[in-house]
Amino acid sequence: MTESTPLLRTAFRHFEPIATRWMDNDVYGHVNNVVYYAYFDTVINRYLIAEGGLDIHGSTAEGATIGLCVESHCRYMKPVAFPDDIDAGMKVAHLGRSSVRYEIGIFARSEPEASASGWFVHVFVDAKTRRSAPVPDRIRAALTRLT
Amino acid sequence: MTESTPLLRTAFRHFEPIATRWMDNDVYGHVNNVVYYAYFDTVINRYLIAEGGLDIHGSTAEGATIGLCVESHCRYMKPVAFPDDIDAGMKVAHLGRSSVRYEIGIFARSEPEASASGWFVHVFVDAKTRRSAPVPDRIRAALTRLT
Amino acid sequence: MTESTPLLRTAFRHFEPIATRWMDNDVYGHVNNVVYYAYFDTVINRYLIAEGGLDIHGSTAEGATIGLCVESHCRYMKPVAFPDDIDAGMKVAHLGRSSVRYEIGIFARSEPEASASGWFVHVFVDAKTRRSAPVPDRIRAALTRLT
Amino acid sequence: MTESTPLLRTAFRHFEPIATRWMDNDVYGHVNNVVYYAYFDTVINRYLIAEGGLDIHGSTAEGATIGLCVESHCRYMKPVAFPDDIDAGMKVAHLGRSSVRYEIGIFARSEPEASASGWFVHVFVDAKTRRSAPVPDRIRAALTRLT
Repeated sequence: MTESTPLLRTAFRHFEPIATRWMDNDVYGHVNNVVYYAYFDTVINRYLIAEGGLDIHGSTAEGATIGLCVESHCRYMKPVAFPDDIDAGMKVAHLGRSSVRYEIGIFARSEPEASASGWFVHVFVDAKTRRSAPVPDRIRAALTRLT
Repeated sequence: MTESTPLLRTAFRHFEPIATRWMDNDVYGHVNNVVYYAYFDTVINRYLIAEGGLDIHGSTAEGATIGLCVESHCRYMKPVAFPDDIDAGMKVAHLGRSSVRYEIGIFARSEPEASASGWFVHVFVDAKTRRSAPVPDRIRAALTRLT
Repeated sequence: MTESTPLLRTAFRHFEPIATRWMDNDVYGHVNNVVYYAYFDTVINRYLIAEGGLDIHGSTAEGATIGLCVESHCRYMKPVAFPDDIDAGMKVAHLGRSSVRYEIGIFARSEPEASASGWFVHVFVDAKTRRSAPVPDRIRAALTRLT
Repeated sequence: MTESTPLLRTAFRHFEPIATRWMDNDVYGHVNNVVYYAYFDTVINRYLIAEGGLDIHGSTAEGATIGLCVESHCRYMKPVAFPDDIDAGMKVAHLGRSSVRYEIGIFARSEPEASASGWFVHVFVDAKTRRSAPVPDRIRAALTRLT
């Protein structure tokens, strides 16, 4: 993807609205680069919880499986700023035995072209031992719907 | 207000929905005490921008007036946690020549009783000199509607 | 405490250096009011961990005791801003059976007078049941040294 | 860089200590993936301010040049957690006419191998017009020392 090929909403399979916060803006008057990753983390985990049954509160229980981020990336094309409302688009680019790679697009509410795009890799692990574990069935089913 | 007199939604005049974020939760599994103040800041400034015409981007312009926080407080009654949706209620408890004291209630989406309550004092200042300035007319009108 | 009686470093019993971060500053060019509470939480928990043996990682273990914030407050006298280094002063104002009230002062590195002052109340609870629990002995000893 | 070739401190040219904060930890008990980018932003801007004379407070002044992040990336090898102290290492991987690409390593205080590694691209722009601008001389000199 280069600057000449804009990233459109049609590239994504699931959307979550994101309400910006006062603190998201930095001294340069727009959402700080760091905060986009908080949007990524939020849209991904909301989906895993709602659709995949991820239990973040019982996360240290015997046998529970959680997703840990092992890599993330963001490219910033156009600024967004509080108090603008935005939408985060999400799709699954690769689903392996114990890992998943998401692609994310951040869109200003009324804009067809993404303001930022990123990706994010979860490795699923046993909550207690933190050793690699297969993607749980219900999460796999939910993620398959976004491929 | 004591624990025997719950704080109800009827105590507030304006509400904003707040979407919790993954990062809002701390190691104890609920929204960290610090983050409530980010909710306060957000609901207040959203209102000032939307209803009072506060211009946060031209905030260093000659003659612009901005609100700076000089005091804040929060009491935590019941935990909230990501991914729960919450509502922030707001009213104006005191409106002076150059300052305003807001009262805020944080409610779980379907709960009539507040999970947390707080207050927050803005002093309005000239954006450039940072000297005390009267509450601008349009902001005063907007705040008066919440008394 | 009024504006005519500045809060001095001598009012506190323990200090921690705080390194400001880029994101701490908001669009008005100084540390956002919310972030002071992150400083409070950090200086208090660093002390509880280092001196009182608080175990935040085994926080859901049977019989563990953790401190939950039930009330906090901050008064902002003078702004601080990234990249300034600051110091957080701390003392114990009240130590009860299962709760403690801390007082905190935020100081610019070379300044004798506080830029902000606040207080923060921890109630100690059983990590699992979240029911009120006595302040553990080792934490009590550590807190007593700050009274 | 693969998991078989650890990233060492010797790969970096400048270090800043980073004090973790309570809020940096998420429900999984370690520093949240998002927060590493706050460390990146902080170490880079501290260096630009101290060594390059970057003026973030006069950032809207006529003729001022600021650096905006256009791309960032992080790979997470081993967790770090509050209250651990860490070091951020930094070097300049590419210095162009109006942009710079930094490489960053995050190290636990006593560890020779990085816990996380990342990169971050700044494009320098006129603070007012936000159009691309050459890297200012003093910043260029400071960045050249890290190549």
